[in-house]
Amino acid sequence: MIPPVVIAIGGNALIRLGERGTLAEQAAHVDDCMGRIAKLAAKGWPLVITHGNGPAVGNILIQMECARDTVPPMPLYIADADSEGAIGFLLQQSLYNHLLGHIRGHVHWNQPRLPSGSISDACVLSVVTQVVVDRDDPAFGSPTKPVGPFYTEAEAAILGMERGWTIAGDAGRGWRRVVPSPRPIRVVEAAAIKRLAEGGDIVIAAGGGGVPVVEAADGRLSGVDAVIDKDMASAVLALQLGAKMLVILTSVDCVYLDYGTERQRRVPRMDACEARAYLDAGQFAPGSMGPKVEAAALFIEGGGEYALITSPEALDDALSGKAGTRIADQVRGQ
Amino acid sequence: MIPPVVIAIGGNALIRLGERGTLAEQAAHVDDCMGRIAKLAAKGWPLVITHGNGPAVGNILIQMECARDTVPPMPLYIADADSEGAIGFLLQQSLYNHLLGHIRGHVHWNQPRLPSGSISDACVLSVVTQVVVDRDDPAFGSPTKPVGPFYTEAEAAILGMERGWTIAGDAGRGWRRVVPSPRPIRVVEAAAIKRLAEGGDIVIAAGGGGVPVVEAADGRLSGVDAVIDKDMASAVLALQLGAKMLVILTSVDCVYLDYGTERQRRVPRMDACEARAYLDAGQFAPGSMGPKVEAAALFIEGGGEYALITSPEALDDALSGKAGTRIADQVRGQ
Repeated sequence: MIPPVVIAIGGNALIRLGERGTLAEQAAHVDDCMGRIAKLAAKGWPLVITHGNGPAVGNILIQMECARDTVPPMPLYIADADSEGAIGFLLQQSLYNHLLGHIRGHVHWNQPRLPSGSISDACVLSVVTQVVVDRDDPAFGSPTKPVGPFYTEAEAAILGMERGWTIAGDAGRGWRRVVPSPRPIRVVEAAAIKRLAEGGDIVIAAGGGGVPVVEAADGRLSGVDAVIDKDMASAVLALQLGAKMLVILTSVDCVYLDYGTERQRRVPRMDACEARAYLDAGQFAPGSMGPKVEAAALFIEGGGEYALITSPEALDDALSGKAGTRIADQVRGQ
Repeated sequence: MIPPVVIAIGGNALIRLGERGTLAEQAAHVDDCMGRIAKLAAKGWPLVITHGNGPAVGNILIQMECARDTVPPMPLYIADADSEGAIGFLLQQSLYNHLLGHIRGHVHWNQPRLPSGSISDACVLSVVTQVVVDRDDPAFGSPTKPVGPFYTEAEAAILGMERGWTIAGDAGRGWRRVVPSPRPIRVVEAAAIKRLAEGGDIVIAAGGGGVPVVEAADGRLSGVDAVIDKDMASAVLALQLGAKMLVILTSVDCVYLDYGTERQRRVPRMDACEARAYLDAGQFAPGSMGPKVEAAALFIEGGGEYALITSPEALDDALSGKAGTRIADQVRGQ
């Protein structure tokens, strides 16, 4: 049984800076990214794809607010689940289309036009994913992650009272709700995702970091409004799956030190210890390269073989060691 | 290998007439319905659950319209995918919670608090589902299914032109978009759903009848704005899965003839031939009991063993033949 590879797709595979997020824009980015991943998929590797939902879930929250007099707004975790459906659909359809006619492993990929009632061999499918966080995570004591629409100070104050939201000013652009960003503990549906990937299906999971849930003493789950970093969730999922490799795709081709300065330089490889040292030294922006490097370190420390941070464009080269940043255990990785 | 059972849940397991569809309302209905299904699940049967999205997707469309000046509205099929995420999440979490502590088959259900990184035995999970419809289906020539918000005649005329919508008056309540309701041909992800169900997972699929897609000559799929009847989609999925039984849950305990008249009487059982004859005689309301009986007939004609139409409350009795309507093949069913 080949261990699965987990690929985390960045938000810019969906909506890019300055775009409104029309379906045409999103579909074009998805198509480009999935075309690159299809090449990997065609190699026959068990594949699990995770993705962000940053701009998409923001749009859903704005839609909910605009309609609040007619339709009861749903909590953030329901908006997360919404976005897992819609983004998952876009990704699975695009990858399916790219794979048509490919041979994957020993099977001809999902032959079109099978007679109704018969079953093709392999699927691309999205799984609605719950991710457990700890109610005692210190993040719940200090919400910091802005979500949803901007409000005036007066509106924000009323909403804060009505809905129990924590509100914070956002860099002079207005007031926004802030939510906690707790650490992911486990993906509830990991066992099924593993079975699917090992059976030859390509699974899209943990979208937007998963729907955050807390677990009561009796094991019951309930949704909670929070933002789980999608790269951290991907690392946790990769460990649960026994994945060999975690690939984190972003908008830069590799990890840089002193990024954006004259001293900027590439990091072709590092071990988890070095990664932690750079993180501690503040080398990577929080909410940007920071969580990616931390997720890679977490994966290696948990027993993963290696992690790769690169861009979709450089993915092919990165897999053959000619681009990207490879994070591996000092001993095993040499 | 025990063949899976497909259970189709009606819209009233989510939002009921006169309700606004708050999360509390939806969660209470879901919890009630899933509590009943958990008893079946605990018997160890491979189980696939399908559901409607009628009121929920309408709410999403209203939210999209209200925010259209800020956020680009998405097509209906994306709203369908959204709703598969959100409703799927509600169902899978509720059923998971009901199953805690149960023994299912030979495994103790999803033990809570497993050490991080280990994999529990079985999952409840929702799969984002695409359902292929035929671009040449006559339904595309005459859209009849109203969706989304009501408009004034003037608004409706503009939207019709701008977006290429077909608009129709809705019983004096205003003007609405109408979309086609083509017949489902196949569920794209059926093979994976079958593998999951046979492996012991409980799968939620084909929500809202699935995301409607058309298939090009080269096999490529693309989304299309339409409404697929969820009971018909469930019958098609059940046949693809080789299911033994299709259970259609609705708000009445069984099928009635001359429903709502003095001559109203129960139908404890019928064969597919009788079902077709009653359908032809106009015994069942279109969009209500009609598609349920037709879905049951389709399932039997396609080789299914038997179908059951009943309410969640009468499900237990219906399974032991004391309630509900059983549709079976004349010969095999006797």
